[in-house]
Amino acid sequence: MVLLQGDDILPQLEAFAIAENIPAANFTGMGFVNMTFGFFDFTTKEFLPKAFKDVELASMNGTIAWQKGKVSIHAHGVVTDKNFNAFGGHILEGKVGTGSLEIMLLIHDKPLERKFEDDLGANVLCIDNCK
Amino acid sequence: MVLLQGDDILPQLEAFAIAENIPAANFTGMGFVNMTFGFFDFTTKEFLPKAFKDVELASMNGTIAWQKGKVSIHAHGVVTDKNFNAFGGHILEGKVGTGSLEIMLLIHDKPLERKFEDDLGANVLCIDNCK
Amino acid sequence: MVLLQGDDILPQLEAFAIAENIPAANFTGMGFVNMTFGFFDFTTKEFLPKAFKDVELASMNGTIAWQKGKVSIHAHGVVTDKNFNAFGGHILEGKVGTGSLEIMLLIHDKPLERKFEDDLGANVLCIDNCK
Repeated sequence: MVLLQGDDILPQLEAFAIAENIPAANFTGMGFVNMTFGFFDFTTKEFLPKAFKDVELASMNGTIAWQKGKVSIHAHGVVTDKNFNAFGGHILEGKVGTGSLEIMLLIHDKPLERKFEDDLGANVLCIDNCK
Repeated sequence: MVLLQGDDILPQLEAFAIAENIPAANFTGMGFVNMTFGFFDFTTKEFLPKAFKDVELASMNGTIAWQKGKVSIHAHGVVTDKNFNAFGGHILEGKVGTGSLEIMLLIHDKPLERKFEDDLGANVLCIDNCK
Repeated sequence: MVLLQGDDILPQLEAFAIAENIPAANFTGMGFVNMTFGFFDFTTKEFLPKAFKDVELASMNGTIAWQKGKVSIHAHGVVTDKNFNAFGGHILEGKVGTGSLEIMLLIHDKPLERKFEDDLGANVLCIDNCK
């Protein structure tokens, strides 16, 4: 999957998952992006965001699953700036920058589900332990 | 494979490899962890460790192989802190933090072996060149 | 695929792609390397390089495709130094350092092509939109 300048990464992956009716998938990616990461604050149960502009996406790892009939994407990434310094974390949103984004998806045969864990205040992937 | 809070990452992978009798595998992963990395000192042939607490695991790449009948896991990772700064290297040990860890394993048909290289003082994966 | 000390990473991948006649592939990797990254300057259309010596390759993600009959490799990576600080970006060249480099390749059935995009001054992977 190749995304081009201006493409919105997570919505594009979501649309692809729906269009191709993917049970579940893992993906990796790399390219040139504008990316917003969020660090989860366990007190407020909210993500504190920070945006990085015009950076290389040095790595991206994610999982496509489903939650109550909707696509649930969870992805982490590392970006690097013009001085080659690295930053990253949990991806809140990202768009392809001046260039492209190459994504490699590995589609699974069996569906994966996420469920909300009250204790954590976060969604957790479940394989055999989906209640 | 999904690990939950408190799970010890490398021993869990090792137990999985034994339980499923995996010939070899590569894996990627991402989640929220406490992780200790080690930088190999080629003079002393020892790893100098450093621990990072409550960090996002932005990427993890590793190989599961065998060495003299025992599971041999080699993994590298990148973690990011609440300021989104990135650190990483060779994983010595790690536990899942407040949250979860999603691991994607790609199982190989053929076994992989590691052997100890005296010159390096380190274990090296061998494919066709296992003496 | 396992590369050893002194091996030139991108030429080795290129030789492997030709020898095995690979239509296309994605790969991940980790090891100990000397690596030169480049940050693309969209004004001059040139990569500004920076070299990192004796560093762990914490992650590498890349794609092997073809362009006008020649192998076209695009790879990004993250390296970490002895203080566990992370740097990275677009890989210009790299050699295996004191140790080894483990590369996991996922070979695709269908060929992938890259083409030069005048607007970007860069090569872009094309899947269904190859003109």
